[in-house]
Amino acid sequence: MKRPRLFAIAVFVIVSLTVPAFAVDYLPSWNDGATKQSIVDFVQRVITPGGKDFVAEPERIATFDNDGTLWAEQPMYFQMIFALDRVKTLAAQHPEWKDKQPFKAVLEGDLKTVLAGGEHALLELVMATHAGNTTEEFSQIVKNWLNTAKHPKTGRLYTEMVYQPMLELLDYLRENGFKTYIVSGGGIEFMRPWTERIYGIPPEQVIGSSIKTKFELRDGNPVMVRLPEINFIDDKAGKPVGINQHIGRRPIAAFGNSDGDLQMLQWTCLTDGKRFCLYVHHTDAEREWAYDRKSSIGQLDKGLDEAKARGWTVVDMKRDWKIIYPSELLK
Amino acid sequence: MKRPRLFAIAVFVIVSLTVPAFAVDYLPSWNDGATKQSIVDFVQRVITPGGKDFVAEPERIATFDNDGTLWAEQPMYFQMIFALDRVKTLAAQHPEWKDKQPFKAVLEGDLKTVLAGGEHALLELVMATHAGNTTEEFSQIVKNWLNTAKHPKTGRLYTEMVYQPMLELLDYLRENGFKTYIVSGGGIEFMRPWTERIYGIPPEQVIGSSIKTKFELRDGNPVMVRLPEINFIDDKAGKPVGINQHIGRRPIAAFGNSDGDLQMLQWTCLTDGKRFCLYVHHTDAEREWAYDRKSSIGQLDKGLDEAKARGWTVVDMKRDWKIIYPSELLK
Repeated sequence: MKRPRLFAIAVFVIVSLTVPAFAVDYLPSWNDGATKQSIVDFVQRVITPGGKDFVAEPERIATFDNDGTLWAEQPMYFQMIFALDRVKTLAAQHPEWKDKQPFKAVLEGDLKTVLAGGEHALLELVMATHAGNTTEEFSQIVKNWLNTAKHPKTGRLYTEMVYQPMLELLDYLRENGFKTYIVSGGGIEFMRPWTERIYGIPPEQVIGSSIKTKFELRDGNPVMVRLPEINFIDDKAGKPVGINQHIGRRPIAAFGNSDGDLQMLQWTCLTDGKRFCLYVHHTDAEREWAYDRKSSIGQLDKGLDEAKARGWTVVDMKRDWKIIYPSELLK
Repeated sequence: MKRPRLFAIAVFVIVSLTVPAFAVDYLPSWNDGATKQSIVDFVQRVITPGGKDFVAEPERIATFDNDGTLWAEQPMYFQMIFALDRVKTLAAQHPEWKDKQPFKAVLEGDLKTVLAGGEHALLELVMATHAGNTTEEFSQIVKNWLNTAKHPKTGRLYTEMVYQPMLELLDYLRENGFKTYIVSGGGIEFMRPWTERIYGIPPEQVIGSSIKTKFELRDGNPVMVRLPEINFIDDKAGKPVGINQHIGRRPIAAFGNSDGDLQMLQWTCLTDGKRFCLYVHHTDAEREWAYDRKSSIGQLDKGLDEAKARGWTVVDMKRDWKIIYPSELLK
């Protein structure tokens, strides 16, 4: 009686070690429920050969907004905090800023006045802090800032304020043959220095807003100089334009959190064939922030209505996510 | 005496079947010599782990010009022939063209007058033939044209006038972990519908000139409308700009055939580390075309001097290529 049992155990062990781990949960930070299930269902459908919703691997394009979708965006876009910090750093070289708005207000920590300056003031800040250097210099400046600057509320590095459930989702999609892209209103050259390390998304799969650049030979060395002139705004109706320009294929899955992502989701999902659109809804004032229809940052109003009307997936952060940040894994 | 010999043969067969085929010639259409050797040397150096010139796979970016580098460009850019054909197709919807230059000249087959109109005339032709439709419609128009139009001299489909040695080079690089890109002065949306099928280069790895596009919902269906306005000219100093915008990494190898590619080659090769720059020099009037310093199409003048001064590889088509077009393989 003993031999057969031992044999059975041996077979079980061997099978366990060799059979594909089909029961692995790739989304452990997502609570079980309809939201998580909608993701898994979609992926299984499009990857099943012979199934009616099968999508060939090269067409498995997934696009992700960044601010508020992959990392936090409160109390203001992190790139804006970078710009404000940069004004302070550069102030010594610009004595005139002490008397000139919007710089004066930034140096005095008077954010209200900065914001009262509207789009024009913000543009001035962006140009003063993002242009005038080479692409290599700017990349290094961004890296240095991210390595040291801390978020005012959490005290964490900004790159630690990425959403663990979304990191798992990115991996899960890539495991299943998807090519994952960032499509953000943020600066393309602000993101590229770190998206590969943090999200596994290489620079060539990052799409964002940009200023113009110019090729120059400086003492025989080629550089790309960043000019104080807007090249492209990758927001709202600009998102499908950026996607078309950079990818030249229509995504089959898109992920956002605000009205600025609505056109990207429309471009992705308002078509025949199996598609997946998802909004991250910030509902957790305790662990993160709660905001939607009336927020000046990451407003989600029209998008929320359209998501409900069209049956897109809406993540309720409080309900659907076990943890928010990767650091919680260590607890 | 028989057993050992049989055994040796068996070992030989097994080894032949299982050892990596290191002696395979990936570039059979290239004549042996310094040109071919320079390519193989470069690739072997950058892929050898632990070697001083080793480059990690994600950084193995290779950029290729298209017109005159991957396919022919005489007697004029094929996209220009497309535009002229398109004027004839659209003429029925535009009776006013019979009396309006440059359309009148196109319809009368008077190429001299068309070209005498200079850049302004060409721009008018491009806008009239490339804008006003959706990206999906335009893609289909290009595919239809390429499936039927024949080259005036060779009588072949334009997609048959790609260079077999360059197809082998693209494959060889990809086999060795390179990501291959097109960086062309030609229209990005003119190339994307066919580059994957012909070159194995997917749409997201095609960079080119573009007109502006606009996202629109038409009866609830999202479309991208092509507008009669230049967005970006991917030529000369525009090529490194396009590379930076789309890839965000500097290539380690670049391939061109004209002065329009010079800045791309400078951006690639004027730096530390092992790099590779190559010019295709059109020297074969019999099998293809011979032109360089004084050609109005694909002028290669400054580039030829700089290639010699810097020791870049220059392909002498007549000397270095066994065959030109894939069809010659069938002979």
